[in-house]
Amino acid sequence: MAHLVSSTSCSLKISTTNKAFPQRSGHGPTAFPSSWGLQSSRIPYESLVSRREKHQRNFIVQSTAVPLNQQVPTQAGSSSYQHSNGSTKMQRVMIIGGDGYCGWATALHLSNKGYQVAIVDSLVRRLFDHQLGLDSLTPIASIHNRLRRWKSITGKNIELYIGDICDFEFLAESFNSFEPDAVVHFGEQRSAPYSMIDRSRAVFTQHNNVIGTLNVLFAIKEFREECHLVKLGTMGEYGTPNIDIEEGYITITHNGRTDTLPYPKQASSFYHLSKVHDSHNIAFTCKAWGIRATDLNQGVVYGVRTDETELHEELNNRFDYDGVFGTALNRFCVQAAVGHPLTVYGKGGQTRGYLDIRDTVQCVELAIANPANPGEFRVFNQFTEQFSVNQLAALVTKAGAKLGLDVQTTNVPNPRVEAEEHYYNAKHTKLIDLGLQPHLLSDSLLDSLLNFAIKYEDRIDKKQIMPSISWKKIGVKPKTVVA
Amino acid sequence: MAHLVSSTSCSLKISTTNKAFPQRSGHGPTAFPSSWGLQSSRIPYESLVSRREKHQRNFIVQSTAVPLNQQVPTQAGSSSYQHSNGSTKMQRVMIIGGDGYCGWATALHLSNKGYQVAIVDSLVRRLFDHQLGLDSLTPIASIHNRLRRWKSITGKNIELYIGDICDFEFLAESFNSFEPDAVVHFGEQRSAPYSMIDRSRAVFTQHNNVIGTLNVLFAIKEFREECHLVKLGTMGEYGTPNIDIEEGYITITHNGRTDTLPYPKQASSFYHLSKVHDSHNIAFTCKAWGIRATDLNQGVVYGVRTDETELHEELNNRFDYDGVFGTALNRFCVQAAVGHPLTVYGKGGQTRGYLDIRDTVQCVELAIANPANPGEFRVFNQFTEQFSVNQLAALVTKAGAKLGLDVQTTNVPNPRVEAEEHYYNAKHTKLIDLGLQPHLLSDSLLDSLLNFAIKYEDRIDKKQIMPSISWKKIGVKPKTVVA
Repeated sequence: MAHLVSSTSCSLKISTTNKAFPQRSGHGPTAFPSSWGLQSSRIPYESLVSRREKHQRNFIVQSTAVPLNQQVPTQAGSSSYQHSNGSTKMQRVMIIGGDGYCGWATALHLSNKGYQVAIVDSLVRRLFDHQLGLDSLTPIASIHNRLRRWKSITGKNIELYIGDICDFEFLAESFNSFEPDAVVHFGEQRSAPYSMIDRSRAVFTQHNNVIGTLNVLFAIKEFREECHLVKLGTMGEYGTPNIDIEEGYITITHNGRTDTLPYPKQASSFYHLSKVHDSHNIAFTCKAWGIRATDLNQGVVYGVRTDETELHEELNNRFDYDGVFGTALNRFCVQAAVGHPLTVYGKGGQTRGYLDIRDTVQCVELAIANPANPGEFRVFNQFTEQFSVNQLAALVTKAGAKLGLDVQTTNVPNPRVEAEEHYYNAKHTKLIDLGLQPHLLSDSLLDSLLNFAIKYEDRIDKKQIMPSISWKKIGVKPKTVVA
Repeated sequence: MAHLVSSTSCSLKISTTNKAFPQRSGHGPTAFPSSWGLQSSRIPYESLVSRREKHQRNFIVQSTAVPLNQQVPTQAGSSSYQHSNGSTKMQRVMIIGGDGYCGWATALHLSNKGYQVAIVDSLVRRLFDHQLGLDSLTPIASIHNRLRRWKSITGKNIELYIGDICDFEFLAESFNSFEPDAVVHFGEQRSAPYSMIDRSRAVFTQHNNVIGTLNVLFAIKEFREECHLVKLGTMGEYGTPNIDIEEGYITITHNGRTDTLPYPKQASSFYHLSKVHDSHNIAFTCKAWGIRATDLNQGVVYGVRTDETELHEELNNRFDYDGVFGTALNRFCVQAAVGHPLTVYGKGGQTRGYLDIRDTVQCVELAIANPANPGEFRVFNQFTEQFSVNQLAALVTKAGAKLGLDVQTTNVPNPRVEAEEHYYNAKHTKLIDLGLQPHLLSDSLLDSLLNFAIKYEDRIDKKQIMPSISWKKIGVKPKTVVA
């Protein structure tokens, strides 16, 4: 894969109490017989709470390069830390939603980099596909087979906790069993169109996302107070204001006084709104309880392969192209492959931030390796480039032509309520400052997406490539068919 | 009562489509036998939807003065509207949470002013008192006896729908039975300390408030698209920024460009956060669906009596003084009455907006009489004066001295996480511009509060007058005793 840099190691001295991870107490996954069975502990809360260590110690964060048919980026790799007593512990990262598109790629990447990884997932994303009659273009293995394959190839164990984080008892048991040093929270309903299908899906999205995140915050406060929360937000929280978008905060001078305040939010679906709610809730708990949190306001992610997923077909990641979970770029590639005109919503001037999934996993690793301070609510805008929908259509048209495809474009009525021509300039320097090495959208990446669409053409359901979820037509009657 | 002005009538011509209420179709409460039984319709959604009228007509909003041992303020009273065909209809106002402190006063006030009123309430606020061992200082009658008494005194009927708005089927039936022209939504868990008791109360608060409001928005969209939503927000959504607080929006010039954006939110409890979430959700539906909404960011309300509640003891309003539902002013009055030092949290410089409950009911009536336009999300800051906690303590000390009470003050550790000394200057001109005639905090009002506390001294539970809910100590274990 391109853009990988040389492996080096680094060490970072961190002072007492500020960035300390508590020494682990020896309770952990070794009590469990396998890496893919449902794991839970039955230890009462009280005794679990007493296991938390109260003493902070100096320690050294140290990189560990893990060979796996690849090179390790310089800037990350702080997968272990050394206590002042000389012992070395691997950082333990819980990935909620680790069976999903971003979560799966991240879980493998961090496991590969030497982190101890546990996936917490209810697998409801797979249920959505069943219920809506959708499927990933790429065939994906069950989470159990995914993890077996990963272990057989690398020897690395990823723990698995199957359950719903809205069920606090389940979440508490997962926390107390795994004892994470960092929690990466992808475990939310993540589709704007899904949240706009009908009332019950709108309510599900906000309940699931808001209450799930509240539970994670309570679990950290109660059981792992030093644990760093890395939460996936979205650039969509900001909407499309007529001024530059900053990273989380904006300094405002008003009537002769100045303050730095949360950047105003203008979300445009019940899904995006759920992320706005999460951000406010997390900010409050950082202030009130001293939670350390990083909100990654991610742009639209594209790409299928990472260094880890391409090791075996059973490690495949998803490729969603449908009108509910698919993004415009994926849909355009599939439309190009089957000879359907690219369906641009409205005028096509809608501009957003985009990034390669290989940068998603880099960014998450950078956030973990450089944790927020206790009480800090840190916001990074996680994308590498801006494109309008028209620009994406033009890129796919050009890439298709190289493959001999005659790609047409059609403007269809916009099912969403959004500005179709607008100013957009969002800052995204904080992750670069931490060392992100972007994979910009390249001809070769577009070729690879188109080739996926051609390779799996027999799996394409043409009914799924048209927009079907209207923001204005959402009603109270449950919809059972959306295509 | 003081501050009432002369009764006059006014008429206001409103152009087509913009502020029109749809002609009612003749279905309504007359189908139901009594004013206080649980009312519901069993008409399927589809046929109910078809009853909505699609045609907008010119009409005249006209005041109707209703005599009831009082004078009617000039600026309000648009309780009926005249269609261009000459027929006159009373405006129908649904008050969700109409059995609560602000809701009850508002229901009576609007009924008195000639509006057709329905109360929708689950009565869960009374359950909280039972569960936490709390009670209003003033004895309050059951909702059934309240409404019977109101009818016996005034001849006016207030409909009652008992149920939970998180149950959409119930809410839909209430909407389709009553067919509101305006919905006043007080139906939320409204205590910051309650939301900070334990995890389950935090989750309940956000679920109940956010999902209940989502359901109201869906009901309006589906069944009463012209209905005006008057939603109770809170000044606490803004927090205590170091710049002036505007009414909902702020114009920001940044890097040479300018936009008017939602005012940044910094809420400081799970309750306040729930209101922030509501505001974002409502703003989105105004934009996406054309909902017309007014968000009343209310300050801290004080006072017990309104013109209507003082007509009979069975119309009494609540007086909460406990550490969960009581406000600082109420608690201070009770502490003064029983000879307990006034418990100021921390330094006491916490400054907030305050208003008399007689102004709450005026403001709601003004919002209804001057509805937001379709698609407009309008925000009013609803308070009349700012006070710090130390200022309130000084006012109660002075008022107590006049009654011969020796009132002491003590600074106790602040159970909340909040700035105790801060800049605070919040704008509140929009309701004044609509005609609000404020009842400022007067010596006579303080006397009356103290006299309530003295009159009902035998009902005071001294355990309840101390702070007990700590923002930092909230945990995951359900608390059964909070005092």
